[in-house]
Amino acid sequence: MKRTLALLLALLLLPAFLQADEGMWLFDIAPKQQIKDKYGFELTDDWLEHVQKSTARFGRGGSASFVSPKGLILTNHHVGLRTIHNLSTPENNIYANGFYAKTFEDEIKCPGVEILVTMLAEDVTAQVNAGIAGGQTPPALAPEEAQRIRNANIARLEREYAERTGLHCEVTSLFHGGVYYMYGYKVYTDIRLVWAPENSIGAFGGDPDNYEFPRYCVDAAFFRAYEDDKPAQIEHYLKWNFDGIEDGELLFVSGFPGRTDRAFTREHLEFQRDVFLPWRLQKMYRREVILSAFASKGIENQRRVDTELTAIQNWRKRAIGQSLGLQTPSLWSDSIPSVEKAGANSPEQKIKDANDAARECSLFFMHDLFELGEAFNSRTFQIARTLVRLAYELEKPNDERLREYRDGNLESLRASLLADTPIHEDVEILKLTDSLLMLAENGERFIGRHAERNERDPMATAREAIRGSKVRDVAERRRLMEGGIAAIEASDDPMIKMALEIDGPSRELRKMYEEEVEAPLAAAYAELAQRRFAELGTNVYPDATFTLRLSYGIVKGYTDSNGDEIAPFTHVSGIFDRAEAQQFRAPFDLSPRWIDARERLDMTVPFNFVTTHDTVGGNSGSPVINTRGEVVGTLFDGNIYALSNNFVYSDERSRSVSAHVAVVIETLRKIDEAQRLLDELGAR
Amino acid sequence: MKRTLALLLALLLLPAFLQADEGMWLFDIAPKQQIKDKYGFELTDDWLEHVQKSTARFGRGGSASFVSPKGLILTNHHVGLRTIHNLSTPENNIYANGFYAKTFEDEIKCPGVEILVTMLAEDVTAQVNAGIAGGQTPPALAPEEAQRIRNANIARLEREYAERTGLHCEVTSLFHGGVYYMYGYKVYTDIRLVWAPENSIGAFGGDPDNYEFPRYCVDAAFFRAYEDDKPAQIEHYLKWNFDGIEDGELLFVSGFPGRTDRAFTREHLEFQRDVFLPWRLQKMYRREVILSAFASKGIENQRRVDTELTAIQNWRKRAIGQSLGLQTPSLWSDSIPSVEKAGANSPEQKIKDANDAARECSLFFMHDLFELGEAFNSRTFQIARTLVRLAYELEKPNDERLREYRDGNLESLRASLLADTPIHEDVEILKLTDSLLMLAENGERFIGRHAERNERDPMATAREAIRGSKVRDVAERRRLMEGGIAAIEASDDPMIKMALEIDGPSRELRKMYEEEVEAPLAAAYAELAQRRFAELGTNVYPDATFTLRLSYGIVKGYTDSNGDEIAPFTHVSGIFDRAEAQQFRAPFDLSPRWIDARERLDMTVPFNFVTTHDTVGGNSGSPVINTRGEVVGTLFDGNIYALSNNFVYSDERSRSVSAHVAVVIETLRKIDEAQRLLDELGAR
Repeated sequence: MKRTLALLLALLLLPAFLQADEGMWLFDIAPKQQIKDKYGFELTDDWLEHVQKSTARFGRGGSASFVSPKGLILTNHHVGLRTIHNLSTPENNIYANGFYAKTFEDEIKCPGVEILVTMLAEDVTAQVNAGIAGGQTPPALAPEEAQRIRNANIARLEREYAERTGLHCEVTSLFHGGVYYMYGYKVYTDIRLVWAPENSIGAFGGDPDNYEFPRYCVDAAFFRAYEDDKPAQIEHYLKWNFDGIEDGELLFVSGFPGRTDRAFTREHLEFQRDVFLPWRLQKMYRREVILSAFASKGIENQRRVDTELTAIQNWRKRAIGQSLGLQTPSLWSDSIPSVEKAGANSPEQKIKDANDAARECSLFFMHDLFELGEAFNSRTFQIARTLVRLAYELEKPNDERLREYRDGNLESLRASLLADTPIHEDVEILKLTDSLLMLAENGERFIGRHAERNERDPMATAREAIRGSKVRDVAERRRLMEGGIAAIEASDDPMIKMALEIDGPSRELRKMYEEEVEAPLAAAYAELAQRRFAELGTNVYPDATFTLRLSYGIVKGYTDSNGDEIAPFTHVSGIFDRAEAQQFRAPFDLSPRWIDARERLDMTVPFNFVTTHDTVGGNSGSPVINTRGEVVGTLFDGNIYALSNNFVYSDERSRSVSAHVAVVIETLRKIDEAQRLLDELGAR
Repeated sequence: MKRTLALLLALLLLPAFLQADEGMWLFDIAPKQQIKDKYGFELTDDWLEHVQKSTARFGRGGSASFVSPKGLILTNHHVGLRTIHNLSTPENNIYANGFYAKTFEDEIKCPGVEILVTMLAEDVTAQVNAGIAGGQTPPALAPEEAQRIRNANIARLEREYAERTGLHCEVTSLFHGGVYYMYGYKVYTDIRLVWAPENSIGAFGGDPDNYEFPRYCVDAAFFRAYEDDKPAQIEHYLKWNFDGIEDGELLFVSGFPGRTDRAFTREHLEFQRDVFLPWRLQKMYRREVILSAFASKGIENQRRVDTELTAIQNWRKRAIGQSLGLQTPSLWSDSIPSVEKAGANSPEQKIKDANDAARECSLFFMHDLFELGEAFNSRTFQIARTLVRLAYELEKPNDERLREYRDGNLESLRASLLADTPIHEDVEILKLTDSLLMLAENGERFIGRHAERNERDPMATAREAIRGSKVRDVAERRRLMEGGIAAIEASDDPMIKMALEIDGPSRELRKMYEEEVEAPLAAAYAELAQRRFAELGTNVYPDATFTLRLSYGIVKGYTDSNGDEIAPFTHVSGIFDRAEAQQFRAPFDLSPRWIDARERLDMTVPFNFVTTHDTVGGNSGSPVINTRGEVVGTLFDGNIYALSNNFVYSDERSRSVSAHVAVVIETLRKIDEAQRLLDELGAR
């Protein structure tokens, strides 16, 4: 009866499912039939392979694509922002003023940046679960024991695949542990900056216009992959489109969406609403205020924290959107799985129990503060902790190490640890003081009144630990990295000592959190996923996991919640109107180069556009591709209604926002006179 | 033994006590001897009476002084800011552009503004405690019963004094209930704006320079009191000083410091550190972000929330300073009374119990959210609640009403309710949405997971309640006010209904909070105060209570925590240097009038100065007075070290910051050409 009802529900849902352009699809189970039925376009395996290998992951949070055979990479300005900011100095502020390399020799090396291309994606569920009773039968082992076995299998598989293919190999759990995929990435580690617009045009409108439309951002930048000190030879790249796109045109987005929570049960969504998001917002609000206040004290202060502030404002706006979404009664539809419907012993019950365990004794908060380091918010602490853990983890066999210290991750870890990026002492003191104060202020709430107080003054402790630490010096980092445990234990660096002091409790918290929250959640969601497979077959897509996905959709405007009709395209004329209405104050302060170019620019060139693609953070920098496989835009945002894409997708108002390739060409031609790049892209 | 020790301690503390210019003294027990001993100046009763009656309270949060026989009032620009902002429109933005009335007729009436002058200050402790066993013996009645009797006595006394004197009479509890004073105020309700500088010079440096020194603010404004539509005839006013002041010169500050917590016990300070301040900061952070984000969306948005944002940033900076202060181990000196030292049955124990009661079942938070209205943050709600309560309270005998609805307060209450100040629908929706979301986000934390959820969408609820409410229209307010309970209960105004709906629970919370927290605290602090009198006599000053106080101190620089020497005066030249270093960006954006006047201005004119006076919020606008009784400055801030003045005063680095009268004259003369005012002040 229940099974029949579930199937019926699934069928009832299916039409709506098919009508909306929903889904962040795996390339090997792309919805070819749906697309053919709805748009009459046949997705071929060749098309898919070409797009897959033309798409790249940019570092640890963005997407990109190859757009020339000489390794030229298109991504968003904001995806490359941290890198661009790191390359900037008060004297040569390319973040503020933009950059264009007139020759290959002028292209600037970006320390610590990696580009990953998905060369392999393979279902390895059976191998990961080897030694564990799985499938429909109840697991024979306790979840934490099963997870231990899985972890060991994963570590072994990653090593074997890496040896066999020469790729960077990573197992990713899909469908919350229902399926495991082995991804093999070709990694480019020599990445150089080719072109970036001024931040005032890349992020025109800043926080006030973030997640809004109409919009006017040249949110694009070019990098280049090098191999052996020469531009990389690339087989798969996307041709640049010079013909434009039309309202209603079918387009694809290929990229690395970061995270969605669409499989969440009612009780898990309640945890997000009542625990996770309120805490995240509390942290974001205070950081935004602290950094803004610091920035307002001086021009150089502003420069030092600009990108971090932008990122925090972005997170804050997202979290508010999600929190308001979860507070809307209509979001809580009856189709969401819940304990009430599923009863005891159900995966839903296990999910509830795991969330309760996270609440117990403030485990969730303590894990966040100590293991995730939120109470020690500073690069100096992150570096010190990594050095400390690296020393101890390397003493263990590969399979027993914390995941991020396994052999497959060591190269990236070491490269990032030794990357010589600027770290400002004053900003570090500011952030550490504030996060230690946050810890102190929440002591009674999380630990209780009678816990022994740490008799440390947050400001004095932060000053001492930051000023006294030498790990901001790359040579010292190398020395400690090479010296292993002996060097760590002999160090009198105050930050190394602090990291060492909290390492035991932090590992304990991580172990508890993994065993009592993460492993049971993974097991329960795997059960839920299996139930869903049984009902719906593979006509489903997994939650986003920062692995390669394909979305489809069309160019389409919408009606906003005030009833206003929003057209799908903006044009160059609009940016000048917007800047004037804001009296050219920041972040609407067009650069003199743009103001001077006003007469030369073609006011009718399309600027940004909206589409119905189902995307989410991580998709930033994704190529937007027409049916001929040409790049027509670079996706950089969703509108405000897309913020609930995390939990549920609807194409009524939710839109992806992209920068049109035409405005990039107009900028290269009339602002930067970047003839070398125009030639490389094939501009006529 | 204990008594001896206490006396010994008091003696040990006394020299330090005398060395520092500590204290916000009552005029009738001013420390004449201390001042004579230390500075050789004899404070006479005539001097004191003259200064008392020349000093005024400005509205509900600031100080001021009369500076001419024709009712001219000097205060800070920031004290008058809300008023100035209310008088501004997009077309005539006197907040942004400043204002100068060339004739009496041009002076603009300020709706809802009151000026109060202290004409009477009398100890009425015995009358307030009539019917209650007091003194050294333990109270015969339960604290809440005693408080009820006191409340009735106070209501009766206020009525009797008002009838007898014709003044506005208010009983204020001093020494936390150790002493009660009857204050009689002459109230001026027809107040008009005479002169205000542009906000960019009144608040030059804005939030980044707030609580900092060196400083450059012409934080001054002139108003005028009218009676019978004519400038008020004033007997006591301060003469303007044109001779300047010197480093080390003895000066006085007369004003209305708002609140200090210097009598707090260790356990009460812990409550502030662990409960009160973290919650206040949490609220301030989110409001600052929400309002800043709104302001950044448009020029008119910015104008609408400017003053509220300034106030929030000010509170945030104060709360961070206090929180960091309370997290400093050195602040927790052994001289602070505590349960550990005093034992059970001590007042210290009762204070701890009262604070524990505030923690119990989140009483403190619920009281704040509902009774103090923090969950319904909007003017529309405040008005609706006042209308609702006024209707019900007026049905009761005077002595049984909530304090703010007693006869003595009705005139002000009605005037403020009917004041036609601008209320912007968009700002109201923004604030109410955010505070309802804050309530929802804290539901699990404060009420628990299993409480029934209010199934309201914060954004939809806020839109509906604000858009649907008519109480922003003064005529409708008057109609509801005059219609009493019948009009309230017949209203289908959504905000009136919301206020009505939560009124019962809110009153319940208020009653619990008064009975379980406030009354026991008052009783216990009264006991503590009596113990202290017995040890020290009247050689003490009470915590600040927004009643008239006198501080003494000298012009003096200091060494900041980085070791830099800070000189006591800044000069006109400095403001141009500071603006240039900040590239004239807001809030360092000097107006064109100032930039144009650069050549005309005398660069050597003193701008702001620091003194050792013990002051706190509420003192803003206080006249700074030399020994001859002339006004030499208007106090507008403390430095960052003065933020802990709330708990403890030290003259090592803590400084009051004032605007020098000379920079006011230079501005009137060279920027505004305000000859009428210069003549009135007696400028040569």
